[in-house]
Amino acid sequence: MSFTQADQAYMARAIELAQQGRFTTTPNPNVGCVIVKNGEIVGEGFHLRAGEPHAEVHALRQAQARARGATAYVTLEPCSHYGRTPPCAKGLIEAGVSKVIAAMVDPNPEVAGRGLAMLNEAGIETAFGLLEQQARALNKGFLKRMEQGRPYVICKLAASLDGKTALGNGESKWITGPAARRDVQLGRAQSCAILTGADTVLVDDARLNVRAEELTDIERPVEQWRQPVRVIIDSQNRLHPELALFKIPSPVVILRSDLDNQHNWPHFVEQIKVNTRAGRIDLQAALNTLAERNINQIWLEAGATLSGAMHQQGLIDEYLIYLAPKIIGTDGRDLFNSAALSSMSQITELQFTEVTSIGTDIRITAHKQQGK
Amino acid sequence: MSFTQADQAYMARAIELAQQGRFTTTPNPNVGCVIVKNGEIVGEGFHLRAGEPHAEVHALRQAQARARGATAYVTLEPCSHYGRTPPCAKGLIEAGVSKVIAAMVDPNPEVAGRGLAMLNEAGIETAFGLLEQQARALNKGFLKRMEQGRPYVICKLAASLDGKTALGNGESKWITGPAARRDVQLGRAQSCAILTGADTVLVDDARLNVRAEELTDIERPVEQWRQPVRVIIDSQNRLHPELALFKIPSPVVILRSDLDNQHNWPHFVEQIKVNTRAGRIDLQAALNTLAERNINQIWLEAGATLSGAMHQQGLIDEYLIYLAPKIIGTDGRDLFNSAALSSMSQITELQFTEVTSIGTDIRITAHKQQGK
Repeated sequence: MSFTQADQAYMARAIELAQQGRFTTTPNPNVGCVIVKNGEIVGEGFHLRAGEPHAEVHALRQAQARARGATAYVTLEPCSHYGRTPPCAKGLIEAGVSKVIAAMVDPNPEVAGRGLAMLNEAGIETAFGLLEQQARALNKGFLKRMEQGRPYVICKLAASLDGKTALGNGESKWITGPAARRDVQLGRAQSCAILTGADTVLVDDARLNVRAEELTDIERPVEQWRQPVRVIIDSQNRLHPELALFKIPSPVVILRSDLDNQHNWPHFVEQIKVNTRAGRIDLQAALNTLAERNINQIWLEAGATLSGAMHQQGLIDEYLIYLAPKIIGTDGRDLFNSAALSSMSQITELQFTEVTSIGTDIRITAHKQQGK
Repeated sequence: MSFTQADQAYMARAIELAQQGRFTTTPNPNVGCVIVKNGEIVGEGFHLRAGEPHAEVHALRQAQARARGATAYVTLEPCSHYGRTPPCAKGLIEAGVSKVIAAMVDPNPEVAGRGLAMLNEAGIETAFGLLEQQARALNKGFLKRMEQGRPYVICKLAASLDGKTALGNGESKWITGPAARRDVQLGRAQSCAILTGADTVLVDDARLNVRAEELTDIERPVEQWRQPVRVIIDSQNRLHPELALFKIPSPVVILRSDLDNQHNWPHFVEQIKVNTRAGRIDLQAALNTLAERNINQIWLEAGATLSGAMHQQGLIDEYLIYLAPKIIGTDGRDLFNSAALSSMSQITELQFTEVTSIGTDIRITAHKQQGK
């Protein structure tokens, strides 16, 4: 069906609302809803946190009796199942809306068209596919997990203009400037998990938390920042509880080849045994394990070895490279450790999807080529 | 003095005109001129080629008698000396203009304020400093040579997103796409010389000419493209006349430690002996030699060794990096071979001045930080 310009504007507003949940809805998707009666917005809502009301519920509460005969714009198909909240399709039916436009069908196998079908059966007109691309961008991680059973992996790296992440001696503080480092905090805060290797933790004594104190310009109290799960790949069982990482009481998952019972680990640390391949944690198995634990989006912030292995196995969905206007030279550390290529036909072809100035640095986003 | 918005618009037009000479005026600067009488443009001109009329002459010819009492806008101070053409200041005086606004004073020691002084003495009102920054950008090479006795060096490199210029085996065709390669032709065509090392010529059998056939969308007949002087640094006297480079009859300069009399070189090849330092051509001496030969702007298109040496000696004014959305990995070739840094304080700090999409690639321009 065809949508009007007004339809587009209302859906764009619903998408804007949905974004307000971007730091908190996980493992649920970001969803926004706008209810329109006689050309006037009578209700708006967005989903904030799993277990709390869905976007439609907030919007219907605001609209009250004006929802009768109105059109509801939702960024994702209304749910049809009883979870921690009753199905939104039922709520829309009871409120008496006459039309529901969804940006996209919910790929969650518990919904997958049943929400729209439930509305249809109740005599409500439905449509979907309005601003679908923008709606998909809201939930890259949720969609990847629902559609492919894998988390969406963003590989974040910071390098000099000549592609070096550190001096030859390992020194890397600071290649990028404060604006880029703050941007990294925002990226971490929007991810379900931060993934790195034991080397990074051991060498840098990294804490891998969201430093909320760097984000005070965003209207959100410091204590409301969610801390992503910190996931460490420790193929050789080298981590120990004295590291700075374990001084911050927020969840840590250690993926190991063997469970460690020698140390006294804090209560927020979980060890998971993962199969190995050639002495290394099987990365595909690791990602599957994380998806099973409802991890939608992973922020990979690791050294060249883990980044290179993830890259070579085709497990990275998005490459996010912060380039600083500096030159280190050939002695510096590379971005990706990977096997030698013998011909250009073996090269990984990506596509640049965004280039933005971040302070004095540049942030480059690249994705796998579509269809490859 | 203060300039009006109208003044700015006329000078902007003069700058636009000046750009039409960007492929041809060398060793002269690009200059544009607009003559305005009673709020109307009565004459426009630009300099096209050394030995041919200057911008002011064209504009005055077009304006004819209307130049009397008019204001002339010129992107560079009118010349005061007799070269291959008579001084433009004299022409403006004879035409009876009442005011001359120059974007900037000409740093050429033969002019250097004398043009404006000559106009003043004739009772003509003068001013300068309008859109000076834009006017300077027209003539980066000319200004560098006049002000510092050195050519302006643009270091062009093409690399994958992870900063690799070739596979480990040396293969590099093609990392960047056709749009970037065409852009390189435009960059070459706007430079006085293309500089590279003997290795690049020997390994790639590079011709280093402007491939005009790739630039047919620009309104300019193929035969009107100027071929920059091809300058090869051959510290170990390894070049020989059988190379593809020498099959194209346009000027080549070989900078050597010793002149070669064993080979029979084509007539368009000139050998220049340059001092060596530690067995290598002294790069600063080489650049001085080229400046003495009126080379304003150099397009450095070389491998990591020469690019790295130029970089380490601080001889690069502008870094122009084409990044392709590809990943090669750690086995690939680096951008700059240079000595190891032992601390971040030794890092070269640049500033990004432009980032542009070129086809599927990105072109990043970086300059030395001002005042450093």
